[in-house]
Amino acid sequence: MIVRPHLHWFRLLFVWRGSVLPHLAPRLGLVLLVSVLSVLCRDWWLSQHASSALSIPPFTLMGIALAIFLGFRNSVSYDRYWEARKQWGNLLIAARSLTRQVASVVQPGHPLRHDVVRWVAAFVFAQKHQLRNTDPQADLALRLDASALAQVSRARFGPSVMLLLLSQRLSEVQREGAFSELHWQAMDRNLHLMTEAGGACERIAVTPIPYTYRVLMNRTVMVYCLLLPVGLSTTIGWLTPLVATFIAYTYLALDVIGEQIEEPFGTEPNDLALDAMCHGIELSICEMVGEAPLSQAPEVRDYVLT
Amino acid sequence: MIVRPHLHWFRLLFVWRGSVLPHLAPRLGLVLLVSVLSVLCRDWWLSQHASSALSIPPFTLMGIALAIFLGFRNSVSYDRYWEARKQWGNLLIAARSLTRQVASVVQPGHPLRHDVVRWVAAFVFAQKHQLRNTDPQADLALRLDASALAQVSRARFGPSVMLLLLSQRLSEVQREGAFSELHWQAMDRNLHLMTEAGGACERIAVTPIPYTYRVLMNRTVMVYCLLLPVGLSTTIGWLTPLVATFIAYTYLALDVIGEQIEEPFGTEPNDLALDAMCHGIELSICEMVGEAPLSQAPEVRDYVLT
Amino acid sequence: MIVRPHLHWFRLLFVWRGSVLPHLAPRLGLVLLVSVLSVLCRDWWLSQHASSALSIPPFTLMGIALAIFLGFRNSVSYDRYWEARKQWGNLLIAARSLTRQVASVVQPGHPLRHDVVRWVAAFVFAQKHQLRNTDPQADLALRLDASALAQVSRARFGPSVMLLLLSQRLSEVQREGAFSELHWQAMDRNLHLMTEAGGACERIAVTPIPYTYRVLMNRTVMVYCLLLPVGLSTTIGWLTPLVATFIAYTYLALDVIGEQIEEPFGTEPNDLALDAMCHGIELSICEMVGEAPLSQAPEVRDYVLT
Amino acid sequence: MIVRPHLHWFRLLFVWRGSVLPHLAPRLGLVLLVSVLSVLCRDWWLSQHASSALSIPPFTLMGIALAIFLGFRNSVSYDRYWEARKQWGNLLIAARSLTRQVASVVQPGHPLRHDVVRWVAAFVFAQKHQLRNTDPQADLALRLDASALAQVSRARFGPSVMLLLLSQRLSEVQREGAFSELHWQAMDRNLHLMTEAGGACERIAVTPIPYTYRVLMNRTVMVYCLLLPVGLSTTIGWLTPLVATFIAYTYLALDVIGEQIEEPFGTEPNDLALDAMCHGIELSICEMVGEAPLSQAPEVRDYVLT
Amino acid sequence: MIVRPHLHWFRLLFVWRGSVLPHLAPRLGLVLLVSVLSVLCRDWWLSQHASSALSIPPFTLMGIALAIFLGFRNSVSYDRYWEARKQWGNLLIAARSLTRQVASVVQPGHPLRHDVVRWVAAFVFAQKHQLRNTDPQADLALRLDASALAQVSRARFGPSVMLLLLSQRLSEVQREGAFSELHWQAMDRNLHLMTEAGGACERIAVTPIPYTYRVLMNRTVMVYCLLLPVGLSTTIGWLTPLVATFIAYTYLALDVIGEQIEEPFGTEPNDLALDAMCHGIELSICEMVGEAPLSQAPEVRDYVLT
Repeated sequence: MIVRPHLHWFRLLFVWRGSVLPHLAPRLGLVLLVSVLSVLCRDWWLSQHASSALSIPPFTLMGIALAIFLGFRNSVSYDRYWEARKQWGNLLIAARSLTRQVASVVQPGHPLRHDVVRWVAAFVFAQKHQLRNTDPQADLALRLDASALAQVSRARFGPSVMLLLLSQRLSEVQREGAFSELHWQAMDRNLHLMTEAGGACERIAVTPIPYTYRVLMNRTVMVYCLLLPVGLSTTIGWLTPLVATFIAYTYLALDVIGEQIEEPFGTEPNDLALDAMCHGIELSICEMVGEAPLSQAPEVRDYVLT
Repeated sequence: MIVRPHLHWFRLLFVWRGSVLPHLAPRLGLVLLVSVLSVLCRDWWLSQHASSALSIPPFTLMGIALAIFLGFRNSVSYDRYWEARKQWGNLLIAARSLTRQVASVVQPGHPLRHDVVRWVAAFVFAQKHQLRNTDPQADLALRLDASALAQVSRARFGPSVMLLLLSQRLSEVQREGAFSELHWQAMDRNLHLMTEAGGACERIAVTPIPYTYRVLMNRTVMVYCLLLPVGLSTTIGWLTPLVATFIAYTYLALDVIGEQIEEPFGTEPNDLALDAMCHGIELSICEMVGEAPLSQAPEVRDYVLT
Repeated sequence: MIVRPHLHWFRLLFVWRGSVLPHLAPRLGLVLLVSVLSVLCRDWWLSQHASSALSIPPFTLMGIALAIFLGFRNSVSYDRYWEARKQWGNLLIAARSLTRQVASVVQPGHPLRHDVVRWVAAFVFAQKHQLRNTDPQADLALRLDASALAQVSRARFGPSVMLLLLSQRLSEVQREGAFSELHWQAMDRNLHLMTEAGGACERIAVTPIPYTYRVLMNRTVMVYCLLLPVGLSTTIGWLTPLVATFIAYTYLALDVIGEQIEEPFGTEPNDLALDAMCHGIELSICEMVGEAPLSQAPEVRDYVLT
Repeated sequence: MIVRPHLHWFRLLFVWRGSVLPHLAPRLGLVLLVSVLSVLCRDWWLSQHASSALSIPPFTLMGIALAIFLGFRNSVSYDRYWEARKQWGNLLIAARSLTRQVASVVQPGHPLRHDVVRWVAAFVFAQKHQLRNTDPQADLALRLDASALAQVSRARFGPSVMLLLLSQRLSEVQREGAFSELHWQAMDRNLHLMTEAGGACERIAVTPIPYTYRVLMNRTVMVYCLLLPVGLSTTIGWLTPLVATFIAYTYLALDVIGEQIEEPFGTEPNDLALDAMCHGIELSICEMVGEAPLSQAPEVRDYVLT
Repeated sequence: MIVRPHLHWFRLLFVWRGSVLPHLAPRLGLVLLVSVLSVLCRDWWLSQHASSALSIPPFTLMGIALAIFLGFRNSVSYDRYWEARKQWGNLLIAARSLTRQVASVVQPGHPLRHDVVRWVAAFVFAQKHQLRNTDPQADLALRLDASALAQVSRARFGPSVMLLLLSQRLSEVQREGAFSELHWQAMDRNLHLMTEAGGACERIAVTPIPYTYRVLMNRTVMVYCLLLPVGLSTTIGWLTPLVATFIAYTYLALDVIGEQIEEPFGTEPNDLALDAMCHGIELSICEMVGEAPLSQAPEVRDYVLT
């Protein structure tokens, strides 16, 4: 996530970091090249085929499909991003609720207060590593004992196994009489919420936007952008390179930003700050039971919070 | 579901697999034919009926209805696809929650731990076969005993009957004292969630987009695409075949992709990977109780995961 | 609901059933008439008032309001249709869940198993009749005993009274000890879901889209369609009757299809197949307790399922 | 709410009641005046400033912002209207569920059956009066005893206090043993649903669409409508008064209808029929316990149901 | 929140307060300057480069991306604003429900009735201060005792710690027998709702719209607005300064209003009236238990309610 103080609109015009210009340079270069070529060939073409010149009106017709594709891509990508963010918010909520319940119903000195915070934090970190396909060993080893660690490490769906172990621990303590079955039921609901948030994140991570959309969108946008200079050159002449490149920039940028945020669990600058959120959750539940968190707040580097 | 590593935008332009071009070839051919004919007839027509020539502006007026239809079709189809995906995610969540509850509250050696995993997996496979109208026998025979299999096979709504049998089993075990009524209530909620997800999938499968929309959309798009070359030819001459075919491609492709994903439970390349999801659910709940899944992960063939 | 196998796009162009053309014939005839008149008068008008001729550009300005109205009407109507469908899906889900609970917790021979299925089916049929303003007597008499029938028949909101009677029956059986209070609570939730689905359907049925929208939409579309031939005739001459009628067809069809699906509980071809759904729910819950349904599957007549 | 049988499209064109024309007359008159003036001045202006004439194309550019504003206003207003309707539907659902629970678990002769219906009806009427800022005394005095009436009348948030009194009554009866704590819990959920519906209605009533939107929308639409005749007059001459007034009518009508339904709790013709809904809720719960409602069904006057 | 009685549309045209004009003055001045310059240079440019003049049609092409960006920005910002409002509504609902439960199940003289109202009000104020990054000391000191105040003040996530303390208090009183475990469970659900509302507000507060959107939107809008006068000047001459500035005003205003409401927890005029809502919640729950609120209703200053 890019975190940056509000900039004046004028300085924002020339910001490089957080812009998608670097990704677009090759394609924009191609549009520029076609622009220059079509202006150069214009007089020759018009003198030969005066009645077959491309002008601007056909592009307003192509624009309909383009608008539907780009608008759709943009809103679907953002919905995925925002739903992913909501699910991580739900993890925070369930973690706090569960900690609150445990810290309210078990006696002050009971080891469960300490354990539940460790387990929940470990679950959150494991979920992050699963979504990012990174190795959870280091984060888990800090928070779990050896036997649990072994069992979780072998699993394909680690976070689920961890919730099971936590759930078994809670049931065990309940059977020992530290709290009642009604308390267990209330806690069970928060475990369910965690399963839900984890499952929803997995769904977003493994189900991309249907591939055919990508193919279609890429084709529609690129053909449009490459034909555009030809059409503009007959009307606006040497202003074509400027205008065609700017229009192509806006369309291609919409396409690229959609691509960046549709997979919100990555580590690109626009992705969700999972590291910071994991730390935030741990910090919040640790301070509820008066412990220190085991993770460190990630630093903002180059305006990016990971 | 088409799974394919990210391609460079340039290679994506020429991808064939995952494109809808093959479906559109006949219609695009027709548009091409009309384009050529209208350019050929143009001079003759203009010399005869100079004041009755079709040009581009009327098409911007037709474009309004076209944009509403195509935008609506596209978003409704995608919403159906994504809701279907969410419901399968809910099946995973309920399956994990139920397994977790059973594995937490019954004693380690109790046969229910094994049985619940089998039943839930069988339910998920039965749901898949019902939605795809395929024969569930093979998958059910692997996981259910003979009497249950017979009862389920006779049923018109197999998955519902299976949930009932599982529910009866849980109630029975509860009456024997393996867990309390409050535990039963928590498990009952997950059975309800499975009923809910199954019912929602059935709803999507049996209720298509109202037929009148199909008729209207097909007519609007086809008449537009067939009139378009006539209108373009008076303005852009011999560029008409290229431009008219490209515009027709974008509109028809929007129509076809909508048709493909509006029925998300089929076996076309863009449909949901139900086989893989069934296997994933079984794998996830099996590893929670330390068993091996009975299904195999489906292979990706020709970039398609079924 | 129109059920029809997928047709080839070419045959779909000439489908009559499921098309809204019959409803539109008078209005399209009027547009055709105005088209012919305005082409005939064109030369005379242009010779008199050359500087006051209507051409196409003003129509793109009118198009903005038209697009907002038609897009809004279309999506609101479809949302009503789809929400109504969801609520009937929820009835199915609650019916199955309640049947499952009863069939799991009461002893196999208990008469409640039989009764609950009858009551739930009767409730579903009563709900259908209330939404369609038809007489429920025949369907209720099949499923309820005389005293209940009398009580329900007198009521203005029959389905609510039926749920109350079912609820009283469940409470009574619970007090007799056939199941526990926790079981009662779980069943009570499904009764609540039925109340919810019924209430939501009533809401859709009694609250139309605000009347002022109808007035405005009708005016905007009709004035647009009647001015359109005048504007087109100065540009495209004798092609006006064809093009103006086609454009008017797309706009008016959007309006008419919106009108058809905004009241989804009627018996027009595009309305929900309530008869089939009632039968489906009864069939599904009957087979769970091993009984035969009392209703017959409705036949598809002329491609329409009621 | 305007209730009116379906009119033929032709008669609908000339409907006055339910139209927003009366509100718009002054503004449309102004547009008409500007139209006539700009046609009159056209020739003089064109002879002086031939190269500075306003024509139609700039208006298509302004149209983008206009479309975003009007589309946004329209959908936000309708969403508020429909959410308000849903919340009143939820009141009906919770009222029926609570009545059903009480009438199922307490003995037939118990006074609570009578009391709960009175209290719930009084709550619904109090909610209506709070939302409309009218005096609830008459409606409450009919349904509450003197001490409760006094306590509710003093309160700033009457409906909340009423729910508390009802809740205290239920707890008291529960402590006397008329039903169990689990029953109490199920009823408590319906009281929560009523709190929820009431709170949501309050939210809609006290939070208008941000004021800045009103200012912007009014300015954009009015400046557009007043410039429009100037632009049209250079192209379509004496047809300007007709066309400009019609276009202005569609935009201004969109604005006005949005204003009317964004505050759905008022007593204008397009607002929700709260009187009828209150009566409907009372009627429905009264017939469940065999009592007569104390309110009368409001009459439809001049096609308007209040 | 700006609260202002409905103004006549004519007076609304000249409203200054609540308008975004002051923020836009520099940018509009720049557009005006470019307008004047391009009209002045027009004749010279056209005489030199007649075939390279910018006219209006290219702007309709740029308009597509502009419409997608501005429409997206606008609806995302408003959704954030409205979701934030909903979450504060949920706080009110949970506060009332919890107070109602406590005031129904504990004996009239029990100190918990007083305490719960204080704690809930303190939680709501703490939540407000956390979202606005202001110092909660004064508001908390009024409502909490010294030891709780110390514990909350040290915490990074104060509101969470407060809910824990309230939860511990409730559990303690429950163990003393003032109410049953089922009552505790019902109250626990309302504490969960408060955690949920608080977590959702935090999510909105810490997760802005992805930065790349800001960069892109600012660029697209500014380049468009600065090129626009150049394009208009060739067509409408000296009307350019007026028309270009007005069009730029509508686009920039859409951008600025989006920026203002996307962070709804600030203290700008268009932000949510958190002070008033905190007071409203306290007033509502205090009058339920017959106490006086400790906060004062904030005054409306200059039409703004904070």
